[in-house]
Amino acid sequence: MKTIRLRAKRSDEAKKALPLPFSEPEVPAADQTESPAPVKVRTEPRRRETAQTLAQKQREISVSEFFLKNRHLLGFDNPQKALLTAVKEAVDNSLDAAEEAGILPDLKIEIEQLTEERFRIAVEDNGPGIVRSQIPKIFGKLLYGSKFHRLRQARGQQGLGISSAGMYGQLTTGKPVVITSRTGPNREAHHFEIVLDTAKNEPKVLTDTTVSWDVPHGTRVEIELEGLYRKGPRSVDEYITQTAIANPHARIVYKPPKDDVIIYERTANELPRQPIEIKPHPYGVELGALIKMMQDTKARSLKAALQTDFSRVSPRVADEICAQGGLNSAKRPSRLDPQEIEQLFQAIPKTKIMAPPTNCLSPIGQEQILAGLQRLGAEFTTAVTRPPAVYRGNPFQIEAGLAYGGNLPSEDLVQLMRFANRVPLLYQQSACAIFKATMSVDWRNYALSQAKGALPAGPCVILVHMASAWVPFTSESKEAIASYPEIMKEIRLALQECGRQLAVHIRRGRRLAEEHRKRSYIEQYLPIIGEALQNILDLSDRQRQQAVSTLENILERSRKL
Amino acid sequence: MKTIRLRAKRSDEAKKALPLPFSEPEVPAADQTESPAPVKVRTEPRRRETAQTLAQKQREISVSEFFLKNRHLLGFDNPQKALLTAVKEAVDNSLDAAEEAGILPDLKIEIEQLTEERFRIAVEDNGPGIVRSQIPKIFGKLLYGSKFHRLRQARGQQGLGISSAGMYGQLTTGKPVVITSRTGPNREAHHFEIVLDTAKNEPKVLTDTTVSWDVPHGTRVEIELEGLYRKGPRSVDEYITQTAIANPHARIVYKPPKDDVIIYERTANELPRQPIEIKPHPYGVELGALIKMMQDTKARSLKAALQTDFSRVSPRVADEICAQGGLNSAKRPSRLDPQEIEQLFQAIPKTKIMAPPTNCLSPIGQEQILAGLQRLGAEFTTAVTRPPAVYRGNPFQIEAGLAYGGNLPSEDLVQLMRFANRVPLLYQQSACAIFKATMSVDWRNYALSQAKGALPAGPCVILVHMASAWVPFTSESKEAIASYPEIMKEIRLALQECGRQLAVHIRRGRRLAEEHRKRSYIEQYLPIIGEALQNILDLSDRQRQQAVSTLENILERSRKL
Repeated sequence: MKTIRLRAKRSDEAKKALPLPFSEPEVPAADQTESPAPVKVRTEPRRRETAQTLAQKQREISVSEFFLKNRHLLGFDNPQKALLTAVKEAVDNSLDAAEEAGILPDLKIEIEQLTEERFRIAVEDNGPGIVRSQIPKIFGKLLYGSKFHRLRQARGQQGLGISSAGMYGQLTTGKPVVITSRTGPNREAHHFEIVLDTAKNEPKVLTDTTVSWDVPHGTRVEIELEGLYRKGPRSVDEYITQTAIANPHARIVYKPPKDDVIIYERTANELPRQPIEIKPHPYGVELGALIKMMQDTKARSLKAALQTDFSRVSPRVADEICAQGGLNSAKRPSRLDPQEIEQLFQAIPKTKIMAPPTNCLSPIGQEQILAGLQRLGAEFTTAVTRPPAVYRGNPFQIEAGLAYGGNLPSEDLVQLMRFANRVPLLYQQSACAIFKATMSVDWRNYALSQAKGALPAGPCVILVHMASAWVPFTSESKEAIASYPEIMKEIRLALQECGRQLAVHIRRGRRLAEEHRKRSYIEQYLPIIGEALQNILDLSDRQRQQAVSTLENILERSRKL
Repeated sequence: MKTIRLRAKRSDEAKKALPLPFSEPEVPAADQTESPAPVKVRTEPRRRETAQTLAQKQREISVSEFFLKNRHLLGFDNPQKALLTAVKEAVDNSLDAAEEAGILPDLKIEIEQLTEERFRIAVEDNGPGIVRSQIPKIFGKLLYGSKFHRLRQARGQQGLGISSAGMYGQLTTGKPVVITSRTGPNREAHHFEIVLDTAKNEPKVLTDTTVSWDVPHGTRVEIELEGLYRKGPRSVDEYITQTAIANPHARIVYKPPKDDVIIYERTANELPRQPIEIKPHPYGVELGALIKMMQDTKARSLKAALQTDFSRVSPRVADEICAQGGLNSAKRPSRLDPQEIEQLFQAIPKTKIMAPPTNCLSPIGQEQILAGLQRLGAEFTTAVTRPPAVYRGNPFQIEAGLAYGGNLPSEDLVQLMRFANRVPLLYQQSACAIFKATMSVDWRNYALSQAKGALPAGPCVILVHMASAWVPFTSESKEAIASYPEIMKEIRLALQECGRQLAVHIRRGRRLAEEHRKRSYIEQYLPIIGEALQNILDLSDRQRQQAVSTLENILERSRKL
């Protein structure tokens, strides 16, 4: 990348005449010192705006209107992706709900093709169900949910996903979202049909009834939407396959539009470690956020506020921060003036504070990654779970796995499987930190070929998982991870560790192959050399055989050195 | 890209047992037919959630909280980009306002460095100013503005930009946004200090006063923020340079943090064509949107609604749509039942309707692009403005320009300048339709070298501008254009046209060079041939000279054939 600069005029006069801040307009040309000046217009008559006419056009924009017009931000850019995104949002919610309730997830995913480009998707889980009063808002209001305000690893985090899938269905088919949910065998199963009033961002309930349902507890959501079903790299099928790899504790029954039911049995019979909700870490807080926290805290002293509203702040650390900032630790937080909060803000990075707790994280684990990769039929697999790390105060953990050889196709670039909080990421690969970090590793060190600015090539699948209480996605559609340096670094370290294992494997293979080649060479030519010797030196057959076997021994020995 | 499928169990039994929709749970295993089943836990004690405890955690998320936590979506991922984004949002607003009011824009942009990582930016314009009552919401509320609901080319379109810049400043420095605005020489200049209450997404006014200001009309906004000032490819400097190229009618005075003032004088003394607001085109409407339009319309008949709420629907076309859908054109739109709206929806694509009007577009123009490129000191420039085209009912227009040779550095890949509605796009190049389309052109056809999957190489700058009433950006930070096929196609066509011009230029150059080489060859060797002939045939000096010049003529002629 290079820059070409225009030859702009660098005015020394202007510099002199313009102290900071600009106190005088630079060019008060005659026609511009008056009120909005008439200007020659090239073509059509122009309706010129004034401050007053512009003011009349100012309007509030509802968040639903915003996302409806910008639905590509939510992953609904085209019919194929829309179908995947809708399934994904429903599955994310189902897995999260079951896990939070301590239930081994049992999912049914069904895609029914209604017309050429219209589908009905249904996702049903055995989770804890949703209480009746919450159903409309969860499915019929954007930016509503339980996960946004908590620092804790979850698939969903924004309160946008399932309601936006419903909104897209409604936009493209006019049909409501249909929800059936039951919170226990002795409770009623509630059945709702809901649309989203986009001008208000509020749910409109069309149907609210109870039904008989033979599911003891769980939720089923059905969305009718415009879509396109394709097989291949970024298909729903592929998404479900990868979901099964990253969620070995889930059983998934999947009915694609035309094919037979596919069942992914669970390979782990225990739930993953339940991630714990944590408080923000002081190192990640920004000045504005700190100001707000000090206003909103329920604590009555600065010291107490630091201890209760942050993680890893013990009484001793709180005292240290206050001392470092020259602040009275007993002061009421809401009474701190801007200058004092700034001192507090400056004091935090100067105080030594333990890294944030990592029990908010739930990695897949080396063992389960290996188990998943081994299902690919490769000849070699390796996996690594890195220790937790921190970016902007958020703990995260990187895992990587690698499968090589065997059944994997060898003619092409490696396949990269990306996961964030156990959710497969299928789109926007090139915008993702995982892709960039993978590219930035010099795989030729690890015996794979790699062109400049490309993924390595070979019969290889690379898997990377980022677990975090807050995954920094590059868009609301959660398709790519933002390239924070700390995240890039951890991914690289994980991949390099896998790479070293791979290199040992490949080089051992190459050495064996090389030896094998030499051995056959020797075996092929030594008898001929023997015969030549026999002719020249006039040897007996026995002498010839002896010479040959002596030569074989010598060569074998020298080769082994 | 390839896919590797897990060997999932494809159960014929399951298929038989599972009609659509799944009426029975597949595996009602003993421990799952009861209410949330106890599950063995590997590590720590788990607080298990129930539907009731989860319900208590459900909360509404304010749009400001959402974007504060996701500020990278708005372009505030890192300090360097944050500085650029804040300047950009303010400049976008200033240029839009001045142009809408028919004023040739006069901008002052100033970046003052306060500490190592803290800056104060100020952008001042000579636009129409903002009426007092609107100032707080425009600068202190996300999703508020005049441009979102209008179909009309503008730099801003979402009502997010300037308020999010202010919010970022507040987050990182705790300081309010400072606004001075005046709507005319006989009005007061209002001076505000505003912060955004993120929990409510509402402005909080700290100062509201009048000041004496020697600017007759215009707006000045000042934001203090954490930032990083760097020179180079994605710097504020580069942004302003490119802004000047795409906005030759604007005069820009720029004061970088440490260097002298730079003045970009306007090179065009007329405003660009004022884009006109249009109605949506029927071909771009989706079923859900159509349902809503029929509910909300003020028209009393279907026919009138089609005519007034859409562009390009004449009485005749409205009748044709109704006839095509078998609908009563006199029916009150709000009384149409879902089936009828679906018929209407199906009828639209079957009716021939003129392409949307394109006076909502304001391209830069071939002439101005050439003028801009010529300032780069290249030996060859070319530019093309494509006719308007349509994606999803939205008119758009692509322009491309190309500068080659001369002062441009030759050792590297071409530099790509991307613009959307005259705004330079400096980030997320690889995610942008312009980049993808440029890569997809086979530049070797046009005499540039190009590696597979890379931009072409050579001493070349390629400029692409997309003008549209609605640019489909891939994120709120408006850094990359989504790759709609129609947009990709138009960009390719524009680039190919430039490419052909370039090829003629380069090949002419190559042919001239080749001819020159041949000429020197002939000039070098003909005298020697002459001497040889003289020796062999015993010629006089004069005969030799004659023979040589005859040969020269013959070769010259044959070469020209």
